[in-house]
Amino acid sequence: MLVKSLSLALNFPARYSLFKHLFSTSGSSFKQKVLRIGAVGHAHEAWKDLSSQADVLQLPLITEKYHRKEFLNDLLNNPEFKDISIITRTLDTKRQLGQFDEELLSHLPSTVKAIVHNGAGYDQIDIKPFSQRNIQVSNVPNLVNDSTANTHIFLLLSAMRNFQIGHHKLINNKWAKVNGAPTANTPIGFDPEGLTVGILGNGGIGRAVRDRLIPFGFKKILYYNRNRLAPDLEKDSIYASFDELLKNSDIISVNLPLNSKTFHIINKETISKMKDNVIIINTARGPVIDEISLIEGLKNGKIYSCGLDVFENEPLNVNKELLSLPNVVSIPHMGTHTFQTMKKMEEFVVDNVKAFLKSGKLNALVPEQKDLKF
Amino acid sequence: MLVKSLSLALNFPARYSLFKHLFSTSGSSFKQKVLRIGAVGHAHEAWKDLSSQADVLQLPLITEKYHRKEFLNDLLNNPEFKDISIITRTLDTKRQLGQFDEELLSHLPSTVKAIVHNGAGYDQIDIKPFSQRNIQVSNVPNLVNDSTANTHIFLLLSAMRNFQIGHHKLINNKWAKVNGAPTANTPIGFDPEGLTVGILGNGGIGRAVRDRLIPFGFKKILYYNRNRLAPDLEKDSIYASFDELLKNSDIISVNLPLNSKTFHIINKETISKMKDNVIIINTARGPVIDEISLIEGLKNGKIYSCGLDVFENEPLNVNKELLSLPNVVSIPHMGTHTFQTMKKMEEFVVDNVKAFLKSGKLNALVPEQKDLKF
Repeated sequence: MLVKSLSLALNFPARYSLFKHLFSTSGSSFKQKVLRIGAVGHAHEAWKDLSSQADVLQLPLITEKYHRKEFLNDLLNNPEFKDISIITRTLDTKRQLGQFDEELLSHLPSTVKAIVHNGAGYDQIDIKPFSQRNIQVSNVPNLVNDSTANTHIFLLLSAMRNFQIGHHKLINNKWAKVNGAPTANTPIGFDPEGLTVGILGNGGIGRAVRDRLIPFGFKKILYYNRNRLAPDLEKDSIYASFDELLKNSDIISVNLPLNSKTFHIINKETISKMKDNVIIINTARGPVIDEISLIEGLKNGKIYSCGLDVFENEPLNVNKELLSLPNVVSIPHMGTHTFQTMKKMEEFVVDNVKAFLKSGKLNALVPEQKDLKF
Repeated sequence: MLVKSLSLALNFPARYSLFKHLFSTSGSSFKQKVLRIGAVGHAHEAWKDLSSQADVLQLPLITEKYHRKEFLNDLLNNPEFKDISIITRTLDTKRQLGQFDEELLSHLPSTVKAIVHNGAGYDQIDIKPFSQRNIQVSNVPNLVNDSTANTHIFLLLSAMRNFQIGHHKLINNKWAKVNGAPTANTPIGFDPEGLTVGILGNGGIGRAVRDRLIPFGFKKILYYNRNRLAPDLEKDSIYASFDELLKNSDIISVNLPLNSKTFHIINKETISKMKDNVIIINTARGPVIDEISLIEGLKNGKIYSCGLDVFENEPLNVNKELLSLPNVVSIPHMGTHTFQTMKKMEEFVVDNVKAFLKSGKLNALVPEQKDLKF
């Protein structure tokens, strides 16, 4: 006991006080330990309820100057971490702690059996090494579909109609400073009539986008997916090969997960296969698009406009030239930024932890782990 | 002839040259004369085609320093105007020539039998006195529905989700300058789930808005209209009284024509009947809303946000305080600002002129004239 206390005193003189044992009760040594990474915004009741079943340790936030170096050190040396069995994490902690990769994995205590990620996309976690070490990983697969699709429709309408340009003219007192029609100084836009939308990646979000697009009266909705959907899931959309979709779409709707196959899938070569005046919408992940090629296409007129919720180097180093182009509709990764969705996602994380505590298995394993035995 | 020439010389020394006879051929005295007010942007072929059937006179544009005073003077004194039978006009010429009211009517030559207005809303024309003088008036009733409804959905999504606020934070380099989640410095928004939309005015545009809202999964879509729709037109919407709609809607979607009954229908009193945190969307006409009461509601928190395509004093004197509020999503009257819709509207105007030339009756009389005999 003396050695442990000493080690604690030596290694964590100031930082130790940053850790918060949440809802922990004395005599709770029988409880499994959950390390919570990232803040809770909404599901406070759910976390409180979890306290009867687990001992929850809150990792210091980025605001407390706690980063990857401190985390790796604590994982190896801080006795508080030695018996953690479950880690929950939020999307925004990537910039605090970096990638969940082999290096980080090698620092995890052997007691860790599950990573519960709060987000649909889980590109921040290298699944393979975690699987090899028999650690379950879950994401939040379906709850984000509707709010992300709504964000997608907003961007699509704005990019088709130049609404963002009009807004800037209006607030800068430039309405009707040019003669003619009131909106003569805003480029005229398009109706859906006669246009083809190509949905790239037709999982839950892609299909939610499609369902919302149907009443707008586009000429055709194409989709490309690794696997063609069952006929009853296709609804009014038509399966196309990747190249057919590029060639025939007036609007390309990107709904792909980010992985080694989709990294920079929109690049100089694929853009050159697209129709002139194509519109590109991305609410998936920034690195799915090579922004340098995107900027080139926007500037040389190949691309009419684009709508972006995500960026290659978000949040701190978003390409400034990209943001400065008038035909780039931009918002700061707000896809799931709603009360209801964020609360449900946080509650889903807690439910996943509870499922693990009860059965030793997470509710929603990532697809790569679906056939593995834990 | 000498007197006429003299009068011409005296009254129109410089201005006369501004009038352009379009596509006019010699020996065409048998053709009826069309006075065209406002510019043509898209339907050049249609107007050219019309020239075989009519003599088209283009009124000088606002850019040529030609306003109401000059117009009224010409109507009385310029021999070019004495045999006009049809006048076509565009929405944006209100600011050039003012209202089509009794004063303007009293200056029209007796040969004028039809006013063909290019716009869905025709509040710029006082219908009653024109009817009394047996002059037909048409608008463009249905072609605008889809593009206006698309504009409406854009504003509604933005107002629900604070996308415009996020955009401004992003381009002003304020993403993640506040700690916590990447979007922590943008107010969190709402999903449609659990919310009720109230559609105020359920004509063609209101119903097009409703059709697009259905897949978004709102809890309920209410509508109020002068007359309840036939059951097969109601689809998934529920009829409510005006007061019920105000009381029960989380989002109020304004799709009313502007007239004496709807002027300032959204005012201090009606806003007080709304739910707290109500969202208001207006793509109809600015003066349907009392902007002073709107601003008050936005500032005191009664109104969560609003989305506005139209303003009381557009285009030149839009209320600056209104535009400056972060929870006001704003665009400069872009409801129908698309290639396809603007072209179709202009072609509809030409078709209306042709119908009159052929049958003496316009294709699309305004509702107030539907039962009149011409």
